[in-house]
Amino acid sequence: MGIDIGGTKIAGAVVSDDGQIIAEERQPTPAGDPGAILDVVVEMVQRLGADRPIVATGVAAAGFIDSAQSVVYYAPNINWRNEPFRDRLRDRLGMDVTIDNDANAAGWAEFRFGAARDAHDMTMLTIGTGVGGAIVTGDRLLRGGFGTAGELGHLRVVPDGLLCGCGAQGCLEQYGSGRALLRMADEIADAGGIGLSLAEARRRAGKLDGTIISGLIAEGDPGAMSALRQLGHGLGQACASLSAVLDPELFVFGGGVSIAGDLLLDPVRESYLAHLPARGFHPEPRFVVAELGNDAGVVGAADLARIHAKAAPG
Amino acid sequence: MGIDIGGTKIAGAVVSDDGQIIAEERQPTPAGDPGAILDVVVEMVQRLGADRPIVATGVAAAGFIDSAQSVVYYAPNINWRNEPFRDRLRDRLGMDVTIDNDANAAGWAEFRFGAARDAHDMTMLTIGTGVGGAIVTGDRLLRGGFGTAGELGHLRVVPDGLLCGCGAQGCLEQYGSGRALLRMADEIADAGGIGLSLAEARRRAGKLDGTIISGLIAEGDPGAMSALRQLGHGLGQACASLSAVLDPELFVFGGGVSIAGDLLLDPVRESYLAHLPARGFHPEPRFVVAELGNDAGVVGAADLARIHAKAAPG
Repeated sequence: MGIDIGGTKIAGAVVSDDGQIIAEERQPTPAGDPGAILDVVVEMVQRLGADRPIVATGVAAAGFIDSAQSVVYYAPNINWRNEPFRDRLRDRLGMDVTIDNDANAAGWAEFRFGAARDAHDMTMLTIGTGVGGAIVTGDRLLRGGFGTAGELGHLRVVPDGLLCGCGAQGCLEQYGSGRALLRMADEIADAGGIGLSLAEARRRAGKLDGTIISGLIAEGDPGAMSALRQLGHGLGQACASLSAVLDPELFVFGGGVSIAGDLLLDPVRESYLAHLPARGFHPEPRFVVAELGNDAGVVGAADLARIHAKAAPG
Repeated sequence: MGIDIGGTKIAGAVVSDDGQIIAEERQPTPAGDPGAILDVVVEMVQRLGADRPIVATGVAAAGFIDSAQSVVYYAPNINWRNEPFRDRLRDRLGMDVTIDNDANAAGWAEFRFGAARDAHDMTMLTIGTGVGGAIVTGDRLLRGGFGTAGELGHLRVVPDGLLCGCGAQGCLEQYGSGRALLRMADEIADAGGIGLSLAEARRRAGKLDGTIISGLIAEGDPGAMSALRQLGHGLGQACASLSAVLDPELFVFGGGVSIAGDLLLDPVRESYLAHLPARGFHPEPRFVVAELGNDAGVVGAADLARIHAKAAPG
């Protein structure tokens, strides 16, 4: 069983050994009330698992999870502070429970069943409103000493750069996220020239959003394409640094912005090669888009829980 | 048996299961002649191992090693290009041989027997002429998809920054290495003020070197201390980014510059905290200096070879 707790909805799914979703449902998230979240999850697991043999439940959540996969230190969109969610849920369900960061769960799903299923070492960047990350090295999820590895959106790419919601400056999230794409599109709209269609769309709608920009990119609008290219260049530069540290076989791009496909990946590759240390002295990684979409969270959480339950039964 | 092949000398040592050096020797490196290097290593192993039971030989070398630990793609100070050193040495010795990057071998030694022996997740920065790196996550050395992970000197810290020997711009190596310390000391000497002692020392010796700067630091000279502090600040900022990616329990600093101890670590810590994403939401890593000094390469190489030979006998 995989559960994905987001800021607005909770998704649950029964997932088979080979990553297929057998049954699923969604509920709104009572984000302000930890007790109500627990109730929603318990009822969801009981309903979905009523006539199916469930080995374990894995939970994916946006936030910092401790290295024992037990406590949510902090979640940006949910009222959890040092929440011992694993033990609470385990006590209610009477089965093995694990918690993982949502980007890690999604990355694990892509590694096991999606875009990286043939790889041993992958780095995934999830480009949604922010930038999430997941790292698999030698067939294992890299969790780190305190459970918070793979926060790739907070790699610093510009010293003294834009302020980030994490309190630091110059984080990748400010140059490579969906929110950054909107900022860049706004700048191009302000500048006139190729930004005239963006400016006109903004005037009509009141403000730019992801749907408007996707639409303009689909039409080949030079302003929107330029914003996307700039985003790709920022991400490619970060990938060059990440290659020096992690040396993955492939980079997987997920999240809403990744549906742009090669329109995103081409500038990423170009900029990666231009900024790669010791270019030419080692094989080039592949750059691909994620395959599992919104299901990645529940599929990855379920698979991680199954592996955990197998390794330490009871 | 551990062998450490540097640009100027080759060190060899018989190492016990618990990381103690039982016997050792050193020879100059015939850096231009791959065949002569092989001869030196073979004779060294045969001499040192003459009356001792040797399980396997591990080689540490400065350069890019493939993920099969077999071929040296490229070495900056030795005339090796795609050199199949493992097979050549194995054929001559008739025993299991592995090759690792020298920074990885040194990092592994610190993890097993040195400053990080109590940790599961550590990141090591070796501050010599350049900046080397080694990463251990979940008790395993992170080698990457192509064998070149942990090149932490080539994390980009300044966009469009100083050119690096790797061909990229703004690499940590240009802001956090022994060579960077000399550059900063030269700048302070040029600027007058607290740089007057540095300028005077430079005038007497013709140019600044590591020995002069260490001496001035030991005397508490404000100019030399300021250069070291600036170096520490650069390294601390890089550690903040590395925490977002790798989340180690501790950072270990090795190499010549690390003998400055807390004079280096204090500005590293200070700058790390100032630049840490989401400061306050997870435990702080420790910052320590390496314990094994120049022996780390041979000790780590020997231990990695022993583990490899145990896992895949023959």
